[in-house]
Amino acid sequence: MAILLLLDQVDPTPLETYLKSHPDCPDVRIYPHVGCVDDIDTVVVWKHPQGVLNNFPNLKLIASYGAGVENILSDHALPKDVPITRFVDETLSDQMAEFVLAVILNHRLHITHYRELQAASVWRCGTFLPDRNVTILGMGELGSTTANLLNLNGYNIRGWSRSEKNIPGVISFFGDDQLHASIADADFIVCLLPLTPKTKHILNNELFNATKKGAFLINVGRGDHLHEDDLMDALYQEQLSGAFLDVFSTEPLPADHPFWRHPKIHMTPHISSPTDKQKVARQILDNYHRIKRGEPLLNQVNPKRSY
Amino acid sequence: MAILLLLDQVDPTPLETYLKSHPDCPDVRIYPHVGCVDDIDTVVVWKHPQGVLNNFPNLKLIASYGAGVENILSDHALPKDVPITRFVDETLSDQMAEFVLAVILNHRLHITHYRELQAASVWRCGTFLPDRNVTILGMGELGSTTANLLNLNGYNIRGWSRSEKNIPGVISFFGDDQLHASIADADFIVCLLPLTPKTKHILNNELFNATKKGAFLINVGRGDHLHEDDLMDALYQEQLSGAFLDVFSTEPLPADHPFWRHPKIHMTPHISSPTDKQKVARQILDNYHRIKRGEPLLNQVNPKRSY
Repeated sequence: MAILLLLDQVDPTPLETYLKSHPDCPDVRIYPHVGCVDDIDTVVVWKHPQGVLNNFPNLKLIASYGAGVENILSDHALPKDVPITRFVDETLSDQMAEFVLAVILNHRLHITHYRELQAASVWRCGTFLPDRNVTILGMGELGSTTANLLNLNGYNIRGWSRSEKNIPGVISFFGDDQLHASIADADFIVCLLPLTPKTKHILNNELFNATKKGAFLINVGRGDHLHEDDLMDALYQEQLSGAFLDVFSTEPLPADHPFWRHPKIHMTPHISSPTDKQKVARQILDNYHRIKRGEPLLNQVNPKRSY
Repeated sequence: MAILLLLDQVDPTPLETYLKSHPDCPDVRIYPHVGCVDDIDTVVVWKHPQGVLNNFPNLKLIASYGAGVENILSDHALPKDVPITRFVDETLSDQMAEFVLAVILNHRLHITHYRELQAASVWRCGTFLPDRNVTILGMGELGSTTANLLNLNGYNIRGWSRSEKNIPGVISFFGDDQLHASIADADFIVCLLPLTPKTKHILNNELFNATKKGAFLINVGRGDHLHEDDLMDALYQEQLSGAFLDVFSTEPLPADHPFWRHPKIHMTPHISSPTDKQKVARQILDNYHRIKRGEPLLNQVNPKRSY
């Protein structure tokens, strides 16, 4: 049997190397060099073309290369009854939490702004923003780790999620009814939701208008959480004071996209939670052998929840 | 009797307003409008001209407007036996700690660098620097608060000071003999020393060569801690990978200074610990009345230690 790597926009070579470094690794193939389709019992996927997963009659496991599985679940020809797993990494949560803290500190203390003043040889002092109210949308592994780190650093945290959470130091809001209440006092809105049909474009004008004027948006979830035109409006109307975006509907962001040159939008190229390929390899092989032994899988996705 | 404000490069008006808002405040005068010199029993000073403090025959208290007193102690005509106090503010320590954390995160996660890539419309991913070894030079109020915050955020802290300190989570180094050992493994060197004749130009080539290659310097002490030419050399030789400077020997930094345009030097205009004028006013009045009542002063300076 064999594992097929079906990765778009990701170099498969490092993952192949890490997989093969394990003595219990089966044959590894890289799409489109599939060989005999009957051999494939596991596919590792990232942004795969729709329909292709139906070509493998002996498929036992679909393993997402990352934490998000929206691309897998949106495949209309997804093989039924094949379990899906996603990559969950606590280090990744720690990195995400640090990234969000860095973005908040950078904004409150104007660090990047001073760099721009330096480039213009301008000596001009400002004061730190006192803003410490942060609402985190999405209180899964990434959201709760981020909440804990921010809490430790003296921020007031509200969290919003599908169902009620009990995290020390976090005021929990849940369900559609409480979304607007969760962000009413936010200085910072941090999106760490999974992308599902219900959360697509959740960062829209209706949401922005429910915050206090001058809130700052941080999107580290998925590009499609954000309604891009609504963000441009909210910045123009000064309903939002700025935005820090790490994810985009199309990546890399097209060269003619207005975000590149917007003075109130800071961008990073989807770096907030880099995948540790060594750990991906270990989790895939672990689940591969759990399937063989008929054991429960790690980080299996519930398609009804979309994560 | 009267309090004289003798502040250079600082607008005295807010401090005057806060002082006068207290019902027990005596007359407040602003240099050079001294009135009768016999009236002055307290001066509040910041970068005062040398010799001027000798003009007040009834002087009972010299209160520094900030935490540093090097300018007062370097006055060759300093009146003998007049107690000196400095401004100590825990909030200020918290702000300093946050500033240092922000600078470290900004460097490790390349936040400002991505802003520059954005300005050039370049989509290029990097990885976070794993660097977590921080040596703090100066373990007073500011240094120990900074150590605690960094410790809480997962950094490995070494502290160097005049005498041994016992701070949980901090490996303590002390005395001239241990200076180089304290920075041998440092990814970041943070200067939070008081400026004294012994610490002037302590950030010099000898020190830079005692660190591992590629260390990053953060100076939030005083400009004169840094030997500027030695920093330029160390950056050119790549012994240091970069520097973040908030303080300078001459402030504002002269327009023709090479730091402005140096690609490896990030600058901020002395903002890391902004003075809370309301608190300064309260501490000055408190000490003013302690003098009257013959009570021990708050935050009195020991001239032998220089702080």
